[in-house]
Amino acid sequence: MQTCATQGATRDSNFEFHISGFMSEYQNLKSKLPDHITQGDVKKILAAILSENAPWDWFTRARIPFPFAVRILRELQDAGYLAFANDKTQLTPRGQTLAHELHATAEPNMTCPRCAGSGADWGALQNIFERYVEIYNARPRNENPEFDQGAMTPESLFRRLALMIHMGDLQGARVVNLGDDDLASVAIGLTGLAQSVTVLEIDERIAAYIQAVAQKYNLPLTVRHQDLTQPLPSNLLGAFDTFVCDPPETEQGLLLFVEKGLALLRAGDAHAGYFGATVMEASLAKWARWQKQLLNKHEIAFTHILPPFTEYAPWPDEKPLTDIPALATLAGRPWYRFAFYRLETLPAFQPAADFETELSQVFYFDYEGYYEAWKA
Amino acid sequence: MQTCATQGATRDSNFEFHISGFMSEYQNLKSKLPDHITQGDVKKILAAILSENAPWDWFTRARIPFPFAVRILRELQDAGYLAFANDKTQLTPRGQTLAHELHATAEPNMTCPRCAGSGADWGALQNIFERYVEIYNARPRNENPEFDQGAMTPESLFRRLALMIHMGDLQGARVVNLGDDDLASVAIGLTGLAQSVTVLEIDERIAAYIQAVAQKYNLPLTVRHQDLTQPLPSNLLGAFDTFVCDPPETEQGLLLFVEKGLALLRAGDAHAGYFGATVMEASLAKWARWQKQLLNKHEIAFTHILPPFTEYAPWPDEKPLTDIPALATLAGRPWYRFAFYRLETLPAFQPAADFETELSQVFYFDYEGYYEAWKA
Repeated sequence: MQTCATQGATRDSNFEFHISGFMSEYQNLKSKLPDHITQGDVKKILAAILSENAPWDWFTRARIPFPFAVRILRELQDAGYLAFANDKTQLTPRGQTLAHELHATAEPNMTCPRCAGSGADWGALQNIFERYVEIYNARPRNENPEFDQGAMTPESLFRRLALMIHMGDLQGARVVNLGDDDLASVAIGLTGLAQSVTVLEIDERIAAYIQAVAQKYNLPLTVRHQDLTQPLPSNLLGAFDTFVCDPPETEQGLLLFVEKGLALLRAGDAHAGYFGATVMEASLAKWARWQKQLLNKHEIAFTHILPPFTEYAPWPDEKPLTDIPALATLAGRPWYRFAFYRLETLPAFQPAADFETELSQVFYFDYEGYYEAWKA
Repeated sequence: MQTCATQGATRDSNFEFHISGFMSEYQNLKSKLPDHITQGDVKKILAAILSENAPWDWFTRARIPFPFAVRILRELQDAGYLAFANDKTQLTPRGQTLAHELHATAEPNMTCPRCAGSGADWGALQNIFERYVEIYNARPRNENPEFDQGAMTPESLFRRLALMIHMGDLQGARVVNLGDDDLASVAIGLTGLAQSVTVLEIDERIAAYIQAVAQKYNLPLTVRHQDLTQPLPSNLLGAFDTFVCDPPETEQGLLLFVEKGLALLRAGDAHAGYFGATVMEASLAKWARWQKQLLNKHEIAFTHILPPFTEYAPWPDEKPLTDIPALATLAGRPWYRFAFYRLETLPAFQPAADFETELSQVFYFDYEGYYEAWKA
């Protein structure tokens, strides 16, 4: 039997090569990365580079926190694993060795081009879509970054809408939107399917705009000014069939929005909650904490976790990464994406207890967030 | 203030109408149904009838346990809520009143026709598909119902395959299939992407067939005879990058297969598990128990829970419902469907402990299962 010292390359349980008297490319890179960045993260960003020609699409394919991806890209660039020439980023021979070590290969994009991976077809909603786009284009701009706002593309919203209709969650339903900078309430109202739509919105300008649209088009919409860190109006608790929201990207931010949503749903089974969840500003460890808390504290099941078909439109304070040539100019098109969850209440469901909390940065910022990529 | 006795119709938190001195249609029906069938279940089957012309498709739309749906259909028929005439099932005026009470309306099918709701496009795999179909068609038939076998359609399997490739879970990977009556291992082998594919199969005929195919086509497949209630070979524990399985439909059956899968995955993050989960023989309460146990006991997150795009081909002991005219003949095409889950391991993941258990009926039969519909 050979001893370790005389063996050639062997592997530990996570693919790392230990070669006697020699540091593997991954070990070399790893020594420069912080502990919270894993081998899996490095493999994912390498595979994304091998898979996607458009650099801003690397982040969707990698599905790791944006600042982690940027940190890895910087190390790959500084240590000579990546080269940028003729407007194209490629792995150097060292980069190829690293990719080979980690089994990172090209992953062809197999997303359905018709539905963008949503599984839902909104073709039947074309007329409503056109009316919605007019309203969307006339919305108040210059979003207030203090409230973490951006807007998804109208196509993304209509993919969501198609799923909600398919599942029967709008028909005859009392729907509540927690935050609505995407004007989802208007799209739902325009379908004519919901019994009522209630919008809880903190931004006065958006609230006023939705109110004006509702009046003009005679939509069954009610808009209330609401800071979600504060108690909800007691007459709304346990009063809805369906909630819809796009929470902030932090652990506390998502739970604040979704648990307020669960406080608004009626008791009993077959009520639905929909929410977006970033694949770019949340690690899967954060996803797991969200999933556990929601399942353990509430009588619900997840029925859908869909691929990241939801795209943000370019937003006002989007920033280029000037030190990474491939990302030194903005994408100029949507690239930030999030997944879409549907949960459903079980027979034993009771509306969640309402609560108040202090509005604080923890709802909007953590070390997995977008802006971290520009910190030293 | 009016007292209850003098009020008109009021609603409790779950849509039930209480009208003084008068029983609502739902209250009337409810009195004939067992307690475990909810108002949500009744609403879902009514909406399905209003939505789908092909009766066997009611079950996919309703997404409630098949025997619950059949029980409701029988009561609806016996109590005159449904009428069957000219080869068509319709709600009677009483049935329409009931549907109105429960806010059950038609739910247009918005499933993407190109990808059947999977979000994944397997067009690039057409050549492999054709080779696979030849092998699939020549497989040993007359499945042994003792092991709960059926086979998904080749199209369903290739939708799954497209997702696995998109996510990079086959490329250079050691893949393990726990049970493989669908010959998924052969399809994976034919892609040429995986480093190796190991099949753990209890049925000797299927195992022998896969072995023969692997030899003929020179695929990197290893087939082992394995009863999953027994301990796994110790050299396989914690040795794989990706597992794939289609568990039985019971609570214990699914957990047996998926937790054995988690015993086979390598430590650390970014390893994947794929499994089918029925939407027809499991209530959402069962789904919630599965989800909680897997999240609470293992360092994983769910990354995908996709719509029920996976179809079973008609199977040998499929039965018609002779007492319900619309279902008195077999569908003659796929109608049984299940959802598709992907989980991913987190950085702290350790392979699950292996275990043994007694093979028993609890893995294959519970009161939410298909055959319950024919019991008195």
